[in-house]
Amino acid sequence: MKKIWQKDDLATNILVNQFTVGKDLDFDERLAKYDVKGSMAHCKMLAEVGIISNEESVQMTSVLSMILEDIENGSFEIDKEAEDIHSQIEAILIEKLGDTGKKIHTARSRNDQVLLDIKLYLLDEIREIASLTDEFFQLLIGLAEQHKNVLLPGYTHLQIAMPSSFGLWFGAYAEALLDDVEMLFSVKNIINKNPLGSAAGYGSSFPIDRESTTYNLGFQTMNYNAVYAQMTRGKSEKMLAMAMATLAGTLGKFAYDVCLYLSQNFDFISFPKEFTTGSSIMPHKKNPDIFELVRARCNRIQALPNELILLTNNLPSGYHRDVQLTKEILFPGIDSLKECLEILNYTVPNIKVRNGILEEGKYKYLFSVEKINEEIKKGSSFRDAYIKVGREIENDEFEFEIGNLSQTHQGSIGNLCLDKVSYQFNKLKSKILG
Amino acid sequence: MKKIWQKDDLATNILVNQFTVGKDLDFDERLAKYDVKGSMAHCKMLAEVGIISNEESVQMTSVLSMILEDIENGSFEIDKEAEDIHSQIEAILIEKLGDTGKKIHTARSRNDQVLLDIKLYLLDEIREIASLTDEFFQLLIGLAEQHKNVLLPGYTHLQIAMPSSFGLWFGAYAEALLDDVEMLFSVKNIINKNPLGSAAGYGSSFPIDRESTTYNLGFQTMNYNAVYAQMTRGKSEKMLAMAMATLAGTLGKFAYDVCLYLSQNFDFISFPKEFTTGSSIMPHKKNPDIFELVRARCNRIQALPNELILLTNNLPSGYHRDVQLTKEILFPGIDSLKECLEILNYTVPNIKVRNGILEEGKYKYLFSVEKINEEIKKGSSFRDAYIKVGREIENDEFEFEIGNLSQTHQGSIGNLCLDKVSYQFNKLKSKILG
Amino acid sequence: MKKIWQKDDLATNILVNQFTVGKDLDFDERLAKYDVKGSMAHCKMLAEVGIISNEESVQMTSVLSMILEDIENGSFEIDKEAEDIHSQIEAILIEKLGDTGKKIHTARSRNDQVLLDIKLYLLDEIREIASLTDEFFQLLIGLAEQHKNVLLPGYTHLQIAMPSSFGLWFGAYAEALLDDVEMLFSVKNIINKNPLGSAAGYGSSFPIDRESTTYNLGFQTMNYNAVYAQMTRGKSEKMLAMAMATLAGTLGKFAYDVCLYLSQNFDFISFPKEFTTGSSIMPHKKNPDIFELVRARCNRIQALPNELILLTNNLPSGYHRDVQLTKEILFPGIDSLKECLEILNYTVPNIKVRNGILEEGKYKYLFSVEKINEEIKKGSSFRDAYIKVGREIENDEFEFEIGNLSQTHQGSIGNLCLDKVSYQFNKLKSKILG
Amino acid sequence: MKKIWQKDDLATNILVNQFTVGKDLDFDERLAKYDVKGSMAHCKMLAEVGIISNEESVQMTSVLSMILEDIENGSFEIDKEAEDIHSQIEAILIEKLGDTGKKIHTARSRNDQVLLDIKLYLLDEIREIASLTDEFFQLLIGLAEQHKNVLLPGYTHLQIAMPSSFGLWFGAYAEALLDDVEMLFSVKNIINKNPLGSAAGYGSSFPIDRESTTYNLGFQTMNYNAVYAQMTRGKSEKMLAMAMATLAGTLGKFAYDVCLYLSQNFDFISFPKEFTTGSSIMPHKKNPDIFELVRARCNRIQALPNELILLTNNLPSGYHRDVQLTKEILFPGIDSLKECLEILNYTVPNIKVRNGILEEGKYKYLFSVEKINEEIKKGSSFRDAYIKVGREIENDEFEFEIGNLSQTHQGSIGNLCLDKVSYQFNKLKSKILG
Repeated sequence: MKKIWQKDDLATNILVNQFTVGKDLDFDERLAKYDVKGSMAHCKMLAEVGIISNEESVQMTSVLSMILEDIENGSFEIDKEAEDIHSQIEAILIEKLGDTGKKIHTARSRNDQVLLDIKLYLLDEIREIASLTDEFFQLLIGLAEQHKNVLLPGYTHLQIAMPSSFGLWFGAYAEALLDDVEMLFSVKNIINKNPLGSAAGYGSSFPIDRESTTYNLGFQTMNYNAVYAQMTRGKSEKMLAMAMATLAGTLGKFAYDVCLYLSQNFDFISFPKEFTTGSSIMPHKKNPDIFELVRARCNRIQALPNELILLTNNLPSGYHRDVQLTKEILFPGIDSLKECLEILNYTVPNIKVRNGILEEGKYKYLFSVEKINEEIKKGSSFRDAYIKVGREIENDEFEFEIGNLSQTHQGSIGNLCLDKVSYQFNKLKSKILG
Repeated sequence: MKKIWQKDDLATNILVNQFTVGKDLDFDERLAKYDVKGSMAHCKMLAEVGIISNEESVQMTSVLSMILEDIENGSFEIDKEAEDIHSQIEAILIEKLGDTGKKIHTARSRNDQVLLDIKLYLLDEIREIASLTDEFFQLLIGLAEQHKNVLLPGYTHLQIAMPSSFGLWFGAYAEALLDDVEMLFSVKNIINKNPLGSAAGYGSSFPIDRESTTYNLGFQTMNYNAVYAQMTRGKSEKMLAMAMATLAGTLGKFAYDVCLYLSQNFDFISFPKEFTTGSSIMPHKKNPDIFELVRARCNRIQALPNELILLTNNLPSGYHRDVQLTKEILFPGIDSLKECLEILNYTVPNIKVRNGILEEGKYKYLFSVEKINEEIKKGSSFRDAYIKVGREIENDEFEFEIGNLSQTHQGSIGNLCLDKVSYQFNKLKSKILG
Repeated sequence: MKKIWQKDDLATNILVNQFTVGKDLDFDERLAKYDVKGSMAHCKMLAEVGIISNEESVQMTSVLSMILEDIENGSFEIDKEAEDIHSQIEAILIEKLGDTGKKIHTARSRNDQVLLDIKLYLLDEIREIASLTDEFFQLLIGLAEQHKNVLLPGYTHLQIAMPSSFGLWFGAYAEALLDDVEMLFSVKNIINKNPLGSAAGYGSSFPIDRESTTYNLGFQTMNYNAVYAQMTRGKSEKMLAMAMATLAGTLGKFAYDVCLYLSQNFDFISFPKEFTTGSSIMPHKKNPDIFELVRARCNRIQALPNELILLTNNLPSGYHRDVQLTKEILFPGIDSLKECLEILNYTVPNIKVRNGILEEGKYKYLFSVEKINEEIKKGSSFRDAYIKVGREIENDEFEFEIGNLSQTHQGSIGNLCLDKVSYQFNKLKSKILG
Repeated sequence: MKKIWQKDDLATNILVNQFTVGKDLDFDERLAKYDVKGSMAHCKMLAEVGIISNEESVQMTSVLSMILEDIENGSFEIDKEAEDIHSQIEAILIEKLGDTGKKIHTARSRNDQVLLDIKLYLLDEIREIASLTDEFFQLLIGLAEQHKNVLLPGYTHLQIAMPSSFGLWFGAYAEALLDDVEMLFSVKNIINKNPLGSAAGYGSSFPIDRESTTYNLGFQTMNYNAVYAQMTRGKSEKMLAMAMATLAGTLGKFAYDVCLYLSQNFDFISFPKEFTTGSSIMPHKKNPDIFELVRARCNRIQALPNELILLTNNLPSGYHRDVQLTKEILFPGIDSLKECLEILNYTVPNIKVRNGILEEGKYKYLFSVEKINEEIKKGSSFRDAYIKVGREIENDEFEFEIGNLSQTHQGSIGNLCLDKVSYQFNKLKSKILG
C-alpha cells in the first residue's frame, strides 16, 4: 500500500519498510479503539472551532463509530500493508468520504495521535492491573485472617530468629500491595493528561480548542506545553514501568518465599498436585514451577524501567523514532504482569499451611527474645537479660514453653490490623478504578 | 570497643569487622540526629505504657537531648570504634545512666531503629529536593516568560521540523518538573509511615503503643504489619530512587539540549566565559563541562533503581545484611542530585539566548506546515495541501515569510499557559514541603 | 497430550500449563535440530559403553536422522500439545520403536538436553553474527579508504575541535569491531564446552563416556563438573549478551553519528531518498528512521545483560525453572542484532559524503592546534604557543590556510593503518568462523 | 592554582570548579604513577623523532624519575588545588626545568594521557584480580579434593533431587572461575593496546612514532585509529566491568549457597564463631553477615556494566566530559571485588562441612533416580522404570540403601576431574599474569 503521506510513486524500499515497521502492527492492534476515540473527539472539536463544518464532523463521526463497533466486536482487521493503524483509519475515512476524509488529519500529527492512543490504552491497563491487584489483596487479607493463629518461624539472615505467623506473613504482602498501588495511582494521575493538540511536538497554527478534547476524552487535565507533551512519550511508559516494577517486586518476593517454604527443608506449605509439575527424570518431584515463573517474570518486569531509560536517555528534546520501541518493551510486560496476578489469584486460594511447625526442636531458639522479655518483666534491664539468656543458650540450658504468645501491639501476631490496612487499600483502589 | 551485644570477650575478628562495617560509619553520620529523635519518642512511649518509669524516661530524654544538641551544633563525633551509630548512642546512655540506660533497647531492635532513621532522613531529603526543584521550576518559568517571543527551530528526528520558541523550550522543562514532583510526592507518602515497633521484623511481646511514636515523630500513619515494615527496607530506597531517576531524566535531557545548543553547529545559546572550561590543547574551546557533568551525573542517578533492585531482588522475606548497602548506593545519589539542581540554579540564570536564529536559510522549511495550513484555510483538504507543498519543496520553489506566527491554542508558542502549570506545581509543592 | 513423564491420568491443570509453557514452543523451534543431533551423539555413546545394544542405537539413529531431515527441509512441525521439543522427539522415537525408543532418555535429563541444545544453537548464532560483522567491517574499511581525503570537523564536547576525516571516521568504527569480535571470540570459547552428561545437574550413575559426545558434537572440551555444567545455564546466555551489548554499543554509536550528521545543522552526509522516511505532516522531511531504529534496537540489546543478571542473580546453585525465560530474553535479541547488521550492510554502501565541509567559516578554529604546532616547529614551547594562539582567537585575529595537513603518524588522517587493522580482524574472524 | 592552560586571569568560578572536579582527585591518586611512566615514554619518543633534543629528554626524564620514586614510596601528594594529576606533573616539570618543562605536552592531549593512565592502571588491576582469583581457585580445588567423599543433597527447583557431594559443590565454583578468567583474559587483551598519540581524539600533526611508546610501555599493540582510541574511553571500563560482573556473579552465587547452607533448615556447613556476627536482640544468632555482604557487594558489581552503558550510550563520537565519571563508577568496584576475594580467601579455609547429612529421612528420595537406574540395569526401559519407582513413592513404599554410589563418569561424584580443570586454569592464569 502506498503510504498516505507519500509524495510520489517511489516506493520506499521494502527492506527498509520491514526493518522500520518491525513488530509495530502487532502492538497497534491494541491501540486501534483508542485511535478511533481520539479521532472522534478531534473531529468534534474541529467542528466546534469552525475548522470543518458540522456536517463533515457528523459524517466522519459516523464512519468512525462503525469502525469502533467493528473493533469492539472483533471484526476489524489491521491491514498488514498499512504503515500503521493511524494511516489505516485515515485511509478508510478517505475511501468512504473522499475529500472530507482527508480533513481528519488537520491540526494533528501522528506524533500526538500515538501519544494519545498510548495514554488512553495505559490508563485502561492501569485500571485492570489495579483490579487484579485488588483481587490478590482481598485474597491475602482473607488468608491472613483465616490462618492468624498458625505460627511460623521468623527469619533474619535466613537464620531462625523470632516467632512469626501465617497471619503476619500473608498480611505483610497485602500491606505491600497498598504501597505499590499508591505509586500506581500517582502514575495514573501523571498519565491522565491530554497530549492531543501538541501535533508533532510544536503545536499547530490552527485555533484548536484543547479543553474540548480533554473534556470529551475524559482526561483530568492536559499536558499544556506542546514540547513537553511530546516529551511524555517514553516518560509515561517509563513511569508506569516503575510502578509495575514495584508491584512485581512484591509478587516476586512472595513467589520466592513460596518456593522456599515448599522446599522439603522448610515444608511450611503445600499445594494440590495439579499446581505443581513433575520431573522427566525424578519421579518424586513436585516442583513449584508456577512460582518460579512468577518470580522470573517479575524479574523481567523489574528490568523494564532500566530498558526504557536506556532507550530514551541522552536524546535531546523533540521526537525520535527510537520511541517506537517503547511499545514492544512495555506492552508484553503489562500482559505478563496481569498473567502473574491471574495465576496467583487462581492458585494461592489452594495453599495449605502446616500446623505445629514450631514444635520441631530446631525452632526453640525462636523464643530467646521472649525469654529475655520475661526476665525484663521480672525487673532485669534489657542488656543484662540478653547476656543471661545468651549464656543459657551457649551452655545448652535454654528451655521455653511455647504457651500463649501475648503479642498485642499494632501489627504484631496478636493484632494484625487487617481492617486498618484494608480501609486504606479500598480507599485508594476506588480512586484508581473510579 | 566491645560490641554492646557481645556475649563474651572473644573479639570478632578485625578483618571481618572491617569488611562488614565497610563505609557504613560515614553514612551513619547523617542518621545520628534521627536516631536520637527516634529514641526520644521510643522512651516517651515506654513510660506511657508502663514498661519503664516516668523518672527513667525523663533521665534518658535529658541525655538524648544533650546528644541531639551536640549533633545539631556539630560537636558530636562518631566513635570510629563503635559498631554503628545506634550502638554508640546506647553506650552513651549506659555510661551516663547505668542500668537505666540499658533499658532503651527494650522492645526494639537495630532493625526497626535503622528503618526509622532512614525514613526520617529520606523525608528530610525529599523536602530539600522538592525545594531545589521548586527553585529550578520558578527559574524556568521566568525564562520562558522572558524569552517567549524568541523563536527556535523545532526538531523531530533531529531534522528541522517546525517553529518552536525559547518560551516553549523553557516551559517544557518546567512542566516536566510538575510530573516529576508528582511522583516524588507519592513516594513521600509511601515513606511517611512509622516502622518503629516492628523490632527485628516480627514485633515484640511488650505491650508497646505504636500510635504514640507515630504521632510524636510526625508520621502520617504507620507500617502496620511488622513483617511488612521490615520489607520496606530497600523498598523505600528503591521507590525514592525511582522518583529521583525520573527527575534526573528531566535534568539530563535539559543538559543534553544545552550541550547541543552550545555547539557551533547550533549556536542557539551561550554562557559567560566563567561557566565554561578550556582545553589543555585547543585554545579556542569553551566547553560545556558543567552540563555534560549534569547529564553524566543524572545518568548515574538513573542507574540507581536498577542497582537497588539488583541488591534486593530474589531475597526471601526477613532482614538480610545485604540491605546495609542501600545507604552507600542511595545517599551519594541524593547528594549528587541536589548538587545538580544547585549548579543549574546557579548557572542557568546566566544563559543568553540568540535572536534571529530562524533567519538563516536552512531553517525555511520549518514553515512547510504553516504553508499547508494556509492552503487549508483557503479551502484545500489537508492531504491535498500536503502534496502541493511537498512538490514545491522538491522543485526548490518553496518560499515563506516568517511574519507573525499566529499560534494561539493552549500550550502553543502564542499561549504558553505558564500560569496554569505554575498553579498546579505550587499546589503540589506546598503539599510536599508543608 | 499426556506428558511423557506423567505418573497418572490427573491432567495438570490447563491454566497452569499455559502459564508455565508460556512462549517456549516458539523458541523451541530453533532448538529442534540441535536436540536431534544431541540425541544422536548420546545414542551412539550409550551403545559404545554398552548401556544399549548396537542394534538399538542404529534403530534410534535412523529415526533421528529422518527427523533431522524433516527439520532441515522445513517439514517438521512442533506439536503445540507437546510439553516441549525434547518430549516430542522422545515421543516420536517411542511411537516408531516402542520399548527401544523409551531408552533414549537413559542417563540424561531434560536439563542437560536443553543446556546442550542452547549451546549448539548459540555457537551457530555466534558464527552468523561474526560473519555479518565481518561484512560490515569490510564495508567500513572500504569506505575509509575511498574517502580518506575528505575532511570532516572533529568534535570534543560537541564543540568544534580539530580536523578529522571520513577516513578516520569510518576507520574508527571498523577498528571498534575488532575489539567487539575479540570479546565474542572469548565467549565462543566459553560456550564451546559440552554439558551433556551432567543430567539434572548431579551426573548419572551410568558409566557414560562424556569424551565421546564431546568429540562427536564437535566441542572443544567439556564442562566437567556436573554442578557447574548446570550453572552455565543462564551464564552462557549472559556472557553472550555482554559480547552482543558491546557490539551493539558500537553500532548504536555509529547510528547516532549518522543521525547527527544527517541533521541540517551538520549536513555532512546524505542517503538516497529510498533510505529515509517521510512525515505525515511535514512534506520536507527525510527522516533517518533506519538509523534511529538501529540505535534504539542496539539500546535494547545493551539492556540484555542486565535483564539476564536480574533473572539469575540471588539464586542458589541447582536448576530453577526461572532460566526458561533466558530464551525469550536472548533469542529475539540475537535476531534483532543480526537485522541491525543486515540493514547497515544494505544501506551504508549508499552513503554519500559531502566535500568541502571545512570551508565554512565556523570551522576555522579546527586549525588552532595546527597553528600552535607551527609555532612550536618554529621554536616556541607548547605552552607559550598555546597562549599566543589563544590571544589571537580572542582578538578575532586567528587565520589559517587549510593547505595540506601533514599528519603522518600511525592512526592519523594521513596514515590510517587500515591494513594493520584488517590483518588483525581477519585473523580473529577466521578463528571464530573456522 | 591557576590552570596551566588558562588564558588569562579570569578565575573559573569556584563553584563550577568544585562541581566539575568532583571526586576526581581521589581517583587521580591511583593514576599518578602511570601518568609519570606515560610521560617518560612520551619524552623518550619526542627525542627519538627529533621534536625535542636528547638533552631536554634526559632532563625531563630525570625529574619524572624523581616524581615516580616519590609516588612509589608514598611521599608524593596530590595538590588539592591542581586541576588534575596531569596538570600537576606538568607544573612540576615547568617549575624545575622552565621552558623545557613546557615541552612535555607537545603532540599530546589530556585526553590521550588519561586514556593511557587508565589503561595501564586497569591492566595492573586485572593482574591483581586474576591473582586473587587464582588463590580462591586453588582453595576451592583443595576443599573439593578434601571433602570429595562427603555427600550433600542436590537440589533442583529448591526441591530435594539427587545426591551431590561437597566435592562436586566446591569443584563447581572452581570450574566457574575458569570461565570467568577466560573473559577477563580477553578483556586484558582488548585493553592492552596503546592509545598514546591519539591526542584529543584526532591525532597530531607532529611526526610522532607511536610504535616507540607502544614498545616502551609494554603494550601488545596499539589502538591505531585516533578516533577509535578515544572511543575506548568508557568502552575499556565497560568491558572490564562485564568481566568483573561475571566473576562477581560466581562469588555472589557461592555466597548465597553459604547463607542457605548455614540456615538451621539446611545446616550443611558451619564456621568458627569469629566469622559470624551476633544480634543486638537475639542472643542465639550467629549471622553470616560476611557472606551476605559478599553477595550484596557482588550484586553492586553486577550493576556496573549497566551503569557504564547508561553513562556512555547515545553519545556521538568524540570526547565528552561525561566519561570523567567512569573512574568513580569503576574504581571503587575494583576495590570491592578484590576485598570480596580477600575475605573469601581468608574465611573459606575455615569452613566445616557436616558428615552424614543424607541419613536424615527427608533425603531418601534423593535416590529415586538411582533406583530407576538399578531397574534399568536389570533390563527395564527408562520410562517403565520411572513409572514403577514413581508408584512406589506415591504409595510410600520407596526404600533405598545409600551403599556405595558408583558414579564414575567425568565430572560426577566419583570422578571430579579436578586435575583437568586445574590444568586449564593454570594455563590461562599464566597468560594473564605473565
